[in-house]
Parts: sequence; C-alpha cells; structure tokens
Amino acid sequence: MGFVAVGQRQDAPASIERLVSLVSVDMERVNRMILSRTGSDVAMIPEVANHLISSGGKRLRPMLTLAHAALCGYHGDGHIKLAASVEFMHNATLLHDDVVDESDMRRGKLAARMLWGNEASVLVGDFLLGQAFRMMVEVGSLGALDVLSTAAAVIAEGEVMQLSAAKNTATTEADYLAVIGAKTATLFAAACEVGPILAGSSPIERAACRAYGMNLGIAFQLVDDALDYGGTSAKLGKNVGDDFREGKLTLPVVLSLQRADDEQSAFWRRALEAGETGTEQLEHAIGLMHANGALADTSERARHYGGLAIDSLDVFPDGPMKRALTETVEFCIARAY
Amino acid sequence: MGFVAVGQRQDAPASIERLVSLVSVDMERVNRMILSRTGSDVAMIPEVANHLISSGGKRLRPMLTLAHAALCGYHGDGHIKLAASVEFMHNATLLHDDVVDESDMRRGKLAARMLWGNEASVLVGDFLLGQAFRMMVEVGSLGALDVLSTAAAVIAEGEVMQLSAAKNTATTEADYLAVIGAKTATLFAAACEVGPILAGSSPIERAACRAYGMNLGIAFQLVDDALDYGGTSAKLGKNVGDDFREGKLTLPVVLSLQRADDEQSAFWRRALEAGETGTEQLEHAIGLMHANGALADTSERARHYGGLAIDSLDVFPDGPMKRALTETVEFCIARAY
Repeated sequence: MGFVAVGQRQDAPASIERLVSLVSVDMERVNRMILSRTGSDVAMIPEVANHLISSGGKRLRPMLTLAHAALCGYHGDGHIKLAASVEFMHNATLLHDDVVDESDMRRGKLAARMLWGNEASVLVGDFLLGQAFRMMVEVGSLGALDVLSTAAAVIAEGEVMQLSAAKNTATTEADYLAVIGAKTATLFAAACEVGPILAGSSPIERAACRAYGMNLGIAFQLVDDALDYGGTSAKLGKNVGDDFREGKLTLPVVLSLQRADDEQSAFWRRALEAGETGTEQLEHAIGLMHANGALADTSERARHYGGLAIDSLDVFPDGPMKRALTETVEFCIARAY
Repeated sequence: MGFVAVGQRQDAPASIERLVSLVSVDMERVNRMILSRTGSDVAMIPEVANHLISSGGKRLRPMLTLAHAALCGYHGDGHIKLAASVEFMHNATLLHDDVVDESDMRRGKLAARMLWGNEASVLVGDFLLGQAFRMMVEVGSLGALDVLSTAAAVIAEGEVMQLSAAKNTATTEADYLAVIGAKTATLFAAACEVGPILAGSSPIERAACRAYGMNLGIAFQLVDDALDYGGTSAKLGKNVGDDFREGKLTLPVVLSLQRADDEQSAFWRRALEAGETGTEQLEHAIGLMHANGALADTSERARHYGGLAIDSLDVFPDGPMKRALTETVEFCIARAY
C-alpha cells in the first residue's frame, strides 16, 4: 500500500507527467471544448474567461475526470464535456472567490476583477456556471448531473461556511475540515465520480473513485494552506501570506492557536481580529508555526489523506492509469515539502 | 384578440388575482419547497436567502410555471420543484445584480449586501443557483434541464451585455432589446416553457407558451424601465432614478438620445458619461422624456409586446387559466400608466 511512501520517495521526484501523458489525447478535445464554450458575441465574456482559463492552471480536475473514465473502461464521448464542465465550475468559483477575497492576483497575473471590475468577475462566473450545466445536460446522464449539481450547492455552502468562520479564533480543526471538504474536496470527488457513472461501473468502484477524489482534494487543500506560510521547508512562494492577511482560519493557524501560550494567543488575536498582518507579523507567524510544529503537522495530515486516496484505488487492478493516479497524489503531497 | 384592449380596459383595473387564485394550492407547495431548500447548517445561508426571498416579491415567475403546467393539462408533481427552481434562479440573479449595481435597496428593504456584505450576496446567490439545479435534476426531465440551464447562461450573457453597454451613448434600440430579451425575458420564457415540456405537449403548444413568456418578459422590463423615470403618468415610485444614476442605457434614454438636439445631447452625455446625475438633472431628464415622448413610446412598445404575449395563447381553448394569463399581461402593462 502506498501510505508509507507518500511524499517520501527518494528515487525520483513525484510527478503528474504520467497522468498528463495518459490523458493527453482526450485533454486536447477538452481544451477545444473549453475554448468553444467560452465563445460569445459579447466580447467581454471570452476576454475575461480566457484571461483566467488560459492562464496556465494545471487543469488537474478535468484530467481526473478523464483518468477515472478511462480507469473504469468508459468508451463514449460524454467524459469530454463533463471534464470541461468541471473546469468551468472551478473557474467560476475562482472568479467569485477573487471578488469575495478582494484578491489582486491569480495564478501570477492580475485577477480578472482588477482588469474588468468585480461586476464582470461575478457575471462571467455566472456565465461559466450556466455553460457548465448546459454541457452536462447535453451529455444527458442524470446521475452525473446529480453529482455535479449537488457539488455546486455544497461548494457554495463551504464558501459561506468559510466566510462565517473568517477571523473567528474559536474555529476548530473539525470546522476547518468541514470547510475544505465542502469548498475544495467536493469538486475533486465529483470530478472523479462522474467517470464511473458514465461507464456504468459498480457502486463499489464508484465509491472508490469518489473517495480518491475527496481525499486527494483534502490533501491538496492542506498542502495549499501550508504553502501559504511557506510550507515545511519555508520556501518563499509568490502568494505567501495571502491567507494571513485575509484572516483565514486555515489549519496551520488553528493548530497554532491550540498550542499558543498567553503571549502567542494575544499575537494571533491581534493578527486575525484586529488585522495586524504586516511583513513583521507574517515572519513572526511563520516562526511560531515552525516552532510549534503546525506546518509539519499540516503536511503530515496531508500525507494521511493522500494515503487514503491511494488506498481507495485498491479495488482496481494494477495498470498504468492506477499508477498515474497514485503518482498524482504523491506529486500533490510533495509540493508541501 | 387581446391586442387592442391591453392597458386600456376601463371597466375594472387589470389584476393578477385570478392567476393567484388559480395556482394558490400549488403555490403553497412551492413556498414550502422554497423554504426547505434554503435550509442549511450554515446559518448565514437561510438568513441571507430568506431576507430576500421572503421580502414580498410577487413570485410571478413560479406562478407562470404552475399556470402553464395547468394550461397544458399536466398532472404530475414536477412543476412544483421547477417553479421553485425558477424562483431560486431569479433570486440568485437579484443577489448578484445588487453587487454589480452597488444597490443599497431591494424590494423596499436594505439589500442583502448592505447587511451581510458583497461576499455573502455572491456566495448565497451561487448556493441558490446550485440548489435550483439540484431540484431540476430531481425532477429528471432533460428537456426542462436543457431550457433552464440554457436560460442560466443566456441571463448571465445578457447581464454582461448590459455591463458592456453601460454609459455607452451609441446603444441602439436593437442593442437594448437584445439585453432585456436575454437578462429578463429568457427566464420568463423558460418559466412558461417547462410546463408544456413536463406535460408532453405538442411543439406548437410548447412554442406558444415560450412566446407568451418571452413577450411578457420584454413588456415587463419595458414597463420597469419606464417606471424608473416615473412612468407615463410621472408617478413617484421609491426607485425612481436608480437607472439614471447608474448610467443604464434603457429604452427611455435610448429614445431620448435619438431625439435630442445638440443641447440635449450634451446634457445626456454629461449625465451618462460624466455621472452628473443629481436630483436637478433627474428632474430635467424626466421633463425631456415627457416632452420628446420617450416614456409614452416605451409604454406603447410594452403594450405591443403584451399584445403578442396574449395572441400567442390563441392555440389554447378559452378557459379560466387562459383568461388569468391574459389578465396577467394586462396587469403588468397597466403598471406603466
């Protein structure tokens, strides 16, 4: 079983290249579908949509849809439109998130809202969500529609949950897991589950694909949240400190609060509640997180969920796609180290 | 045929009471469905959703869904969830519109964004849209899903179109009709079309219901846009001047621009492009619109589309529901006078 090896492979760096390669032919079709469905006579729509969609995201979620359809032996065409739908849902969420978080940057570029305004970000997000549902309806699988429409509602619910928890120092680890399970992992889970639905797979295989996506999604978000404080090795990524400045109660902060003495408690309250989040405070926060083990433990928990994702694939026989999906988990975890 | 009588009935004021009465039993079920589907463990969701949904809107769109299902002889239960879906889509649009327009008020109350912030308005709107799609999927009609998901994309497209046209004095009447056809009339059309789809009606009946909704929707928006300048009789409604202050190129403004001499042209440009939209300018604008006939002609066009809506019902035999739908058109038009 993959659990022990996750994030610790010394032979070669973990990579998603095997996954990219196995789905590349289908992914070309998805990319063409994405391009054609952002088209509109209203010039602002393809401008805003393509600014974001063509900005070099890895397109991990649609790749997962294609991979699980293949893993389950699906031979039709429906997975192309469902993969494009999943990417549209993701990008709609990003456009709305940027408005909610008042973010200036996204994927190393100016956020759409900085170039076209909040209005355009909200409305083009709505357009992408509408187009996503149109594609799903064209595929005609009520099972896939059920999973993806439920995901849309749960994602929004998770985002509101996060909004309600913002700056609330009483947030627990369970609260945090509920938020990331809803806002991030649900779309990963749905992306993976629609493949076996199209393929008419057994309930056991369908549940396995969903579990893979759900656990990978949680691990992915945990890693993201650790990287926002520089990760375990204190790498300086370009977005370090965003969550800190927004007062987000991510796991590194939740753990730091649990482990704080009175002086540290006062520091976190000033940062989260009173917005004292300058460079000096950020450096102090990162120092505390290394000293109290919060970053190491966040990465460790990511490794735990990554292991669950890999184990969930046990119901499938060994083969190139299963191996690619295992390496994808390892790649996502390795980012934290 | 109803054309001549629209908006000119002298015997009794036009009313939607007949429609309200005929759908009241079904509407009770829709209202319960709406209440149950705004429920969430995340307390902010029902708070924000019910602030808006329970604020005394007429629920015209879901009533139209119920009415057309009955008109077409439908005897199942699917129309209840589809009617609730239509109302959720409408309210999601309102929540997002308030953010886009930076509106302070909605239906005579503070807009949700003033109480819970733009973030909550965006995200609860997304939640309602997700819940709308879940209900549609539960009904299981791919035909209805097609119509409503297409409507979701077209509505967003219309909103972006309006955003692009804002403050653009080159906007033509055709541009304006394209905007309101997309952002308002498409949901009316979809609300009416899903009834015959559920009932398995003929393509002719289905097209008739859609045409009724589309034309009523255009008339409805034309009346709204006239009322934003006090309507034909210069009634002072509570929202008079909102469009003016936002620089919206609605038909009364488009017509006024077409009919303006050089001095008036300069006035409109200062108002729309430079934002000179105080009380004095608003009064001057309303005065110009009465003098140049823009408000009378906007109401006249509303009457025209209302007549088309009524005529589209010709394919159905006379009966109480057809009469109620005719009176509904007359009621909507009469608001402008």
